[in-house]
Amino acid sequence: MSEQITLTIDGETHEVTAGTTGAEQFRDRKDVVVMRVDGALQDLSRHLVAGSTVEPVTIDSEDGLNVLRHSTAHVMAQAVQELRPDAKLGIGPYIKDGFYFDFDVEDPFTPEDLKTLEKMMLKIVNKSQLFSRRVVTESEAREAMADEPYKLKLMDKADEADEAGEGVNVEVGAGEITIYDNVDRKTGETVWCDLCRGPHLPNTKLISNAFALTRSAAAYWLGSENNKQLQRIYGTAWPTKAELKAYQDRIAEAERRDHRKLGAELDLFSFPDELGSGLPVFHPKGGVIRKAMEDYSRQRHTEAGYEFVYTPHITKGHLYEVSGHLDWYRDGMFPAMHIDETRDESGAIVKPGQDYYLKPMNCPMHNLIFGSRGRSYRELPLRLFEFGQVYRYEKSGVVHGLTRVRGMTQDDAHIYCTRDQMKDELTTTLNFVLGLLKDYGLDDFYLELSTKNPDKYVGADEVWDEATRTLAEVAEASGLELVPDPGGAAFYGPKISVQARDAIGRTWQMSTIQLDFNLPERFELEFQAADGSRQRPVMIHRALFGSIERFLGVLTEHYAGAFPAWLSPVQVRAIPVADAFDDYVWGVVEKLRARGIRAEADLSSDRFPKKIRNASKDKVPFTLIAGGEDAEAGAVSFRFRDGSQDNGIAIDEAIERIVEAVENREA
Amino acid sequence: MSEQITLTIDGETHEVTAGTTGAEQFRDRKDVVVMRVDGALQDLSRHLVAGSTVEPVTIDSEDGLNVLRHSTAHVMAQAVQELRPDAKLGIGPYIKDGFYFDFDVEDPFTPEDLKTLEKMMLKIVNKSQLFSRRVVTESEAREAMADEPYKLKLMDKADEADEAGEGVNVEVGAGEITIYDNVDRKTGETVWCDLCRGPHLPNTKLISNAFALTRSAAAYWLGSENNKQLQRIYGTAWPTKAELKAYQDRIAEAERRDHRKLGAELDLFSFPDELGSGLPVFHPKGGVIRKAMEDYSRQRHTEAGYEFVYTPHITKGHLYEVSGHLDWYRDGMFPAMHIDETRDESGAIVKPGQDYYLKPMNCPMHNLIFGSRGRSYRELPLRLFEFGQVYRYEKSGVVHGLTRVRGMTQDDAHIYCTRDQMKDELTTTLNFVLGLLKDYGLDDFYLELSTKNPDKYVGADEVWDEATRTLAEVAEASGLELVPDPGGAAFYGPKISVQARDAIGRTWQMSTIQLDFNLPERFELEFQAADGSRQRPVMIHRALFGSIERFLGVLTEHYAGAFPAWLSPVQVRAIPVADAFDDYVWGVVEKLRARGIRAEADLSSDRFPKKIRNASKDKVPFTLIAGGEDAEAGAVSFRFRDGSQDNGIAIDEAIERIVEAVENREA
Repeated sequence: MSEQITLTIDGETHEVTAGTTGAEQFRDRKDVVVMRVDGALQDLSRHLVAGSTVEPVTIDSEDGLNVLRHSTAHVMAQAVQELRPDAKLGIGPYIKDGFYFDFDVEDPFTPEDLKTLEKMMLKIVNKSQLFSRRVVTESEAREAMADEPYKLKLMDKADEADEAGEGVNVEVGAGEITIYDNVDRKTGETVWCDLCRGPHLPNTKLISNAFALTRSAAAYWLGSENNKQLQRIYGTAWPTKAELKAYQDRIAEAERRDHRKLGAELDLFSFPDELGSGLPVFHPKGGVIRKAMEDYSRQRHTEAGYEFVYTPHITKGHLYEVSGHLDWYRDGMFPAMHIDETRDESGAIVKPGQDYYLKPMNCPMHNLIFGSRGRSYRELPLRLFEFGQVYRYEKSGVVHGLTRVRGMTQDDAHIYCTRDQMKDELTTTLNFVLGLLKDYGLDDFYLELSTKNPDKYVGADEVWDEATRTLAEVAEASGLELVPDPGGAAFYGPKISVQARDAIGRTWQMSTIQLDFNLPERFELEFQAADGSRQRPVMIHRALFGSIERFLGVLTEHYAGAFPAWLSPVQVRAIPVADAFDDYVWGVVEKLRARGIRAEADLSSDRFPKKIRNASKDKVPFTLIAGGEDAEAGAVSFRFRDGSQDNGIAIDEAIERIVEAVENREA
Repeated sequence: MSEQITLTIDGETHEVTAGTTGAEQFRDRKDVVVMRVDGALQDLSRHLVAGSTVEPVTIDSEDGLNVLRHSTAHVMAQAVQELRPDAKLGIGPYIKDGFYFDFDVEDPFTPEDLKTLEKMMLKIVNKSQLFSRRVVTESEAREAMADEPYKLKLMDKADEADEAGEGVNVEVGAGEITIYDNVDRKTGETVWCDLCRGPHLPNTKLISNAFALTRSAAAYWLGSENNKQLQRIYGTAWPTKAELKAYQDRIAEAERRDHRKLGAELDLFSFPDELGSGLPVFHPKGGVIRKAMEDYSRQRHTEAGYEFVYTPHITKGHLYEVSGHLDWYRDGMFPAMHIDETRDESGAIVKPGQDYYLKPMNCPMHNLIFGSRGRSYRELPLRLFEFGQVYRYEKSGVVHGLTRVRGMTQDDAHIYCTRDQMKDELTTTLNFVLGLLKDYGLDDFYLELSTKNPDKYVGADEVWDEATRTLAEVAEASGLELVPDPGGAAFYGPKISVQARDAIGRTWQMSTIQLDFNLPERFELEFQAADGSRQRPVMIHRALFGSIERFLGVLTEHYAGAFPAWLSPVQVRAIPVADAFDDYVWGVVEKLRARGIRAEADLSSDRFPKKIRNASKDKVPFTLIAGGEDAEAGAVSFRFRDGSQDNGIAIDEAIERIVEAVENREA
């Protein structure tokens, strides 16, 4: 009888025969595709080891999906090298919802290539090829990869590869060097191999027919612009065809809602090349939405006791030395503009100049206003609000539409209060923020608590502890789900961020509420307490939209461009059934305008059905139609965006309905 | 009998005896102090010349006042060198309403020095010293000025002195070199002299007792920071004591209204050193005024068919190459920020970077919006409006409060129309602008027509001619006074500017309306005309406030900080006669707030008279007072800013009065 070994499997102590593999152990569980041994993922083909802790990993778990996708990447690379024998392998990691693989090829891949590759991949999948792990010496590895210059480079600098790799795809790790062979099940022949740390699925059959190649794009070797440009193919893979379909539908829906596409179609905003990356302009229709958002925000902030300030966009650098931004945030700032230097005729500096910077944040300027005169405890909490436009130097590669820009308008408030007021004020602020987000149509939230980044913070630890504890208490009291975000805080204090789920379930970071004991120290802010002593206020940083640009981008996607009436650029379009009713509908439009409604009439030469289609395309919330019957009855007919109609509504009633829908900010 | 000569005097032909001086000719006219001979000013002591055209110049004319002031400067310099024998003379020109003289002295002048100097000057004036002109050779001049190093320097570079001098004070001109001697009338002795082109009054008696020294300040020799710092004394002089007094009152009134002083006193805005020169911040109370100004402006622009756009503050430089700003306006722009450059490990540039600039004007960005899609004639006039924040590099020496800043918010509109619409649109725009200025409390206007600067313009002459003609027609049709401003146009087109006189008669340039055929060419803007052809729109640039910062500065001075209720940061302050009525007045405040009125109650521990004084100091338009009688009657008493009262007004009526005053924007 063979030797028995003892180990922990799925939380329970088991005795198994020495030499048992994971595959054998989990053979009754078809959904198990890999295993976690003492915390590290391993192929099922590995032998179980005495004393270890083993957990089965199913294909639909996060780890299982990652392994599925990385294995699919190997299958794709095999197919690519069949199709293009000259293709040299780059790296091929799993990513969110999929994978990619980079290739050095003469010509970029065409959409037709991707179709061909998908078919070739399906053949490989159906062969049920094995993924076979082989531990090698470095010289064996170099021999096996002799034709793959990028793999050799990876071995040349294994450590750098660790940094450059993404996820599990670090081909050469700190430990053993391994090669994965794709082995033909029938012939036992290795048909393809790659330098790879794995792990992989046991065989390609598990990939099934639930994968797709999505697109190809140029990409620099190891992500550096100094390196050669390779061609990257992206793909996705799922446990079942149904899941693949659901994913593809989600993508299509997200594309349909893409705010960059809708922004152009609805003439809301654009991103002119002439200005530069991440610098949007708002066209008149986008300007209407933005103004409506701002107006309502101003009204609510006024009611909530905020005071409005205005500060410039540039400042001498010294301000950001005091605040710490030039120490901690310089990479996110635009470079300095040097002015006011005076030189004599010889070129010698008579009066030194000054470095001016675009502001990346408004807080230091609000601090100047707080500190511009003596403050009394009677003035606290003092809530300074500004639509403050800030500029941040984002790498051009990460800039994206309105959601990641270089110039943005924060609805930025800084609240100065006493330590005693801090908790109440944070609670009030969180409720205010959530209430306002709901008014804009978002209502599915959770909170994130970002705490100290041990490598990047200013101020005393006990102050951070108190701030963090207070924020946690307020967050917990809200009853919302609270997710920790260790190390995610800005350098000056911990924060709560409100994460909102949109109409198709995606999560967006919205408002942030940040507690700050540090800047008041740095700016030596003071107020006179009731007992006459001088004390430091606590400072709360709070942005609600985050940035108006980003919020508008999110709302555009949330509503798929069909904004609620109060935000719609055009709230009503009146369409006569025939020319004869032009005057009649124009009269209705004038009445609506007198009530402050953004109404227009389509009196163009287009035919009636075209006008209806245009109104639908423009996502106008209320299309009013009028023909003979309506005109006789002094009525109009409503056509809504969902295609439903409500006919023969008396004009006055129609107007009231519309005014009410706008005033109540109905969706 | 002596020879007779013929010449034109005061427009008429005269015969006079050869050798007659101006003084003899005009001896019956005591107000004549100098004469204009063939266009150039001359001393009355000069002989009349045959064939010339002579006009008497009176002391109260602009030329006469300038000569009076320059002569007073000489008297002051004489007194200074008596008081401080070591003082070396700099330049000493007349300026608006006065004069200055620069001196190289060991110690700056004290206020006591100025008092002493005034007394010494009065003694000189009363001696009726003569101003005596003497034509000299350069070597004679150098001998006379041997102890005056700065005068010698002026002679060293007479040409440069021409450029550096201000007004008539160019001591060494292109023609004769002259010295003016101050001559004691009794002894005939020269008591003081200066290298000077003149002319001067005949004698010091004409200066009378209507002068004053106003202040002293450091000033660089010839205005250059590379030169030595001298000490400058400013003074003023008038024909009569009454005029001096009126001037001093105007100055005191202007100082009382100085928006920088009021801005600090009323806690409206400040100019933090930490930010830099010309970069104001608006405190909460200033923010209220600014927001009220902006809100009303937005409302009126919406009603007038303007559409709101938003554009960023920075752009790649190429945009301002296309627009011409980098050619024509670079000096007024902040320096570039260079970003997005990629270098390899050797430091070689792999991808060149881009120069980004802060925008000095919004027009090019609005042009991008116009050009972002095809435009039809049906969309014209298209009126794009933005509160656009621009940055201009003003020399730190000219920056002044809110009226000359480096960062400003323009209420900027660009109107795109056809040539046929141009004149109507200009007329509408001018009326809109004038109407809105009146709503903000200005109602005394004239227009200025700024035409081509022949050295600085782009575009064809005939286009400028048409634009200028059209603007002139529109300006004339307004019925307002029209003053030409030759050469004052921006490089891209002529403009009308609205000049407004404030409450104490000072003139401020407010709105500008600029016609532009050039930028549409440069940006290749097009619309499809009714006949299907592609045509260029005409562009109108229009700022109404000019900049909000400047307009708010002007309004602060115009109203001396006592803003009309609709603009006042605090519209109502309620003051209980005693603590017992705290709740009663608080109830009134809450009712007012419910109606949108910015009301507050002074429930502090201050005594009642102090509270009244504070409300007056804060220039609150409506102070409401309530004591026993009021409370019993359900009433309040009004106290207005002029100290008048209106007692026992029922609360509801009081509220209606206040709401009405705010809604009607009553002064």
